[in-house]
Amino acid sequence: MSKNKLVVIGGDAAGMSAASKVRREEPDREIVVFERGRHTSYAACGIPYLVSGLVGSPDMLIARTPEVFREKQNIDVRIFHEVTRIDPEKRRVLVTDLRKGGDFWESWDQLLIATGASPFVPDIEGIDTEGVFCLSTLQSGIDVFRYIEEQRPARAVVVGGGYIGIEMAEAFRDRGMEVALVDMAEQIMVTMDTGMADLISEYMAEQGVKVFTREKLEGFEKGPDGRIGAVVTGSQELEADLVIVGAGVRPNSAIAAEAGIATGAGGAIAVSKKMEASIPGIWAAGDCAESYHLIRKSQVYIPLGTVANKQGLVAGINISGGDDEFPGVIGTAITKFREMEISRTGLSEKEAGELGTDLRTTTIESPVRSGYFPGTGMMTVKLLAEKKTGRLLGGQIVGTAGSAKRIDTIATAITAGMTAQQVVDLDLSYAPPFSPVWDPVQTAARTLL
Amino acid sequence: MSKNKLVVIGGDAAGMSAASKVRREEPDREIVVFERGRHTSYAACGIPYLVSGLVGSPDMLIARTPEVFREKQNIDVRIFHEVTRIDPEKRRVLVTDLRKGGDFWESWDQLLIATGASPFVPDIEGIDTEGVFCLSTLQSGIDVFRYIEEQRPARAVVVGGGYIGIEMAEAFRDRGMEVALVDMAEQIMVTMDTGMADLISEYMAEQGVKVFTREKLEGFEKGPDGRIGAVVTGSQELEADLVIVGAGVRPNSAIAAEAGIATGAGGAIAVSKKMEASIPGIWAAGDCAESYHLIRKSQVYIPLGTVANKQGLVAGINISGGDDEFPGVIGTAITKFREMEISRTGLSEKEAGELGTDLRTTTIESPVRSGYFPGTGMMTVKLLAEKKTGRLLGGQIVGTAGSAKRIDTIATAITAGMTAQQVVDLDLSYAPPFSPVWDPVQTAARTLL
Repeated sequence: MSKNKLVVIGGDAAGMSAASKVRREEPDREIVVFERGRHTSYAACGIPYLVSGLVGSPDMLIARTPEVFREKQNIDVRIFHEVTRIDPEKRRVLVTDLRKGGDFWESWDQLLIATGASPFVPDIEGIDTEGVFCLSTLQSGIDVFRYIEEQRPARAVVVGGGYIGIEMAEAFRDRGMEVALVDMAEQIMVTMDTGMADLISEYMAEQGVKVFTREKLEGFEKGPDGRIGAVVTGSQELEADLVIVGAGVRPNSAIAAEAGIATGAGGAIAVSKKMEASIPGIWAAGDCAESYHLIRKSQVYIPLGTVANKQGLVAGINISGGDDEFPGVIGTAITKFREMEISRTGLSEKEAGELGTDLRTTTIESPVRSGYFPGTGMMTVKLLAEKKTGRLLGGQIVGTAGSAKRIDTIATAITAGMTAQQVVDLDLSYAPPFSPVWDPVQTAARTLL
Repeated sequence: MSKNKLVVIGGDAAGMSAASKVRREEPDREIVVFERGRHTSYAACGIPYLVSGLVGSPDMLIARTPEVFREKQNIDVRIFHEVTRIDPEKRRVLVTDLRKGGDFWESWDQLLIATGASPFVPDIEGIDTEGVFCLSTLQSGIDVFRYIEEQRPARAVVVGGGYIGIEMAEAFRDRGMEVALVDMAEQIMVTMDTGMADLISEYMAEQGVKVFTREKLEGFEKGPDGRIGAVVTGSQELEADLVIVGAGVRPNSAIAAEAGIATGAGGAIAVSKKMEASIPGIWAAGDCAESYHLIRKSQVYIPLGTVANKQGLVAGINISGGDDEFPGVIGTAITKFREMEISRTGLSEKEAGELGTDLRTTTIESPVRSGYFPGTGMMTVKLLAEKKTGRLLGGQIVGTAGSAKRIDTIATAITAGMTAQQVVDLDLSYAPPFSPVWDPVQTAARTLL
């Protein structure tokens, strides 16, 4: 067949974005995708909403099935196939057929590694107890959903107060469960500054989540039925019928590293802006790869769905003979807990401190809409700027409906290198149902001056 | 008293922003404000929501009363005082006391003209019929509100399909009235391109508003009670118990022009970036003054609350010895009709055509949130870029809840001189409750490439 065969390891966002792009550019090219799980191209970010019951079925989270890729796009997607070795010299990968058993070698002319990330599983006895889950794949989300439906757990403990932790806590509260959230750090949401994170944990507490910070996970205790019964922390024992361990994720870069492919930030596969790995003919994209941080001006590890999609697209363009570069990230993220919206972009105070950047910061509170408009809630905006130049470096928003998406204005301004004054000068939209006369982002920028 | 007396003509957004800023900078300065109406610093943009009943009382629209300015800020605000002549040579204004009667001269060392705008009143017989209103001041909004409460009109006709027209049509529908909207142009919302405006008029029609374009207002007919009975257009007679004429506004620049002060775009008072008028010692700000358009690179007349506030602040800074410039506008605006949000920024196709700019345009439809998220609606995004450079020049959004405020991302990108590619490259926020993986603004930018 083609002398230019592309093999993709991993059939989720990055891998399938790349494969689809290559197919569009090169209709006749041979493209094989190995996916060790059952699903392709699913929305991992939707898992909490599947668990909460808000999203009615797992199928709704699947953007495109293996069959569709095969039939509509002529992409040879093989699910339940795990790549266990990369042989860069002979340009081939060793593949295990997880259903039928047995290994085989598959050759490639170009290889894209899009193996994603796996949840970090702390080495603590009892973590394999029934009812303890580490979320990552769609399948793991389905497992949690089924466990809830079958076991009807009344008390959930979430370990880890990051995005997944907060979203799962919301899902469990929305299902009427008692929820405790445990984090070993001094605060939840470590990507936000302390004062902003405090607003979140206070609100979560108001909404019935018991939030415990500075508590280290030490063990699990089984109940009389052999399933999870309690979570043991440094200072207490929390009864639990269901536990989610959200201790962050690690890039699935081991098979790359074993093949001599360089790894970098956070242990992720080191990549150029073109998403090339350190060995010619090999590319990497998505949660297994590094990203360039536009403010830090260095590689970082930020596994996110948006990044995976963009990196996959860039890799696909370059693999099919085009010329594109991944533009980089600035750490923009958004989530919510019930009526509270949360977003951040750029550097936090802690991150700026690590870089030795002198900051000017401000935190303001403002109505989300015109103060007199019925149902208007409040929002808090924090802005961080470089002291010397006034250049905006970061922003954080915590507030009621309609507030958090304003982070995009801040992200755009940061990317453009705007100063706080230039943000004040922006011609932003105003009407009473949408905003006060001075948009809260601009009110923050004004107080920063 | 002070040898540096400031007189301000007009006690609304621009005038009071300036006066307040001067007071903060110069605690001892003599500041006199003449306002011909009863109210100061009110939110004119809130009037439709007062009429609809959503805002419970006119007081809620008043940011600060004359008494508060007088007592808290020591600003000598004199309501029901109309300035009828400016004498730049002798540095004085002729003032009529509208309550007590009688004129007097008031001297000034610096003068700020912030006289605002008045609705354009077409010279058509019967326009003074009871039940026909031209909206401008808070008082005129209160008058409409009272008329509705007292007369219980069942049928409203709105003449003019601009922002005020749409918002008043919404208010009347929300009060259960039959509503017809008449515009002489080929479409409503002439600041939007045709296809986008069509989405709005189609939705308004679905919501029970009879929309008639290309129909010129020709006359009014009285009913048997002497109040308004019908609106006569070029092609029909529309029964009406209440009529709003929203035919745009004109700057209140006549007393300035009579005093030899130069006027410019749209007949508004010509100003420098520092908000200085053509005669030294005289300043102008708000709806009576021009604004600099950052894309057109020329003066325009765009009377908006945000602009008035900013211009007032800039004037206040300069009047009190500081140094600031009005940053300019790009024509950002936002509104809604029931569940439909509407926003625009930058140049429309028509405006770009007038400037002779070759365009690349695209219009895309996208879910507002992740497609699988419950209650996700659709939004339409139109982007306009310069053909040669790809530089973004304009954007328009029409869509369901959560869509229109994204115009701020576009406005920021335009102001920063970003290309469509640079918008695709932005690290915008994504989570299922807020956005698809590719924000609709970026999806539009991608299709533009």
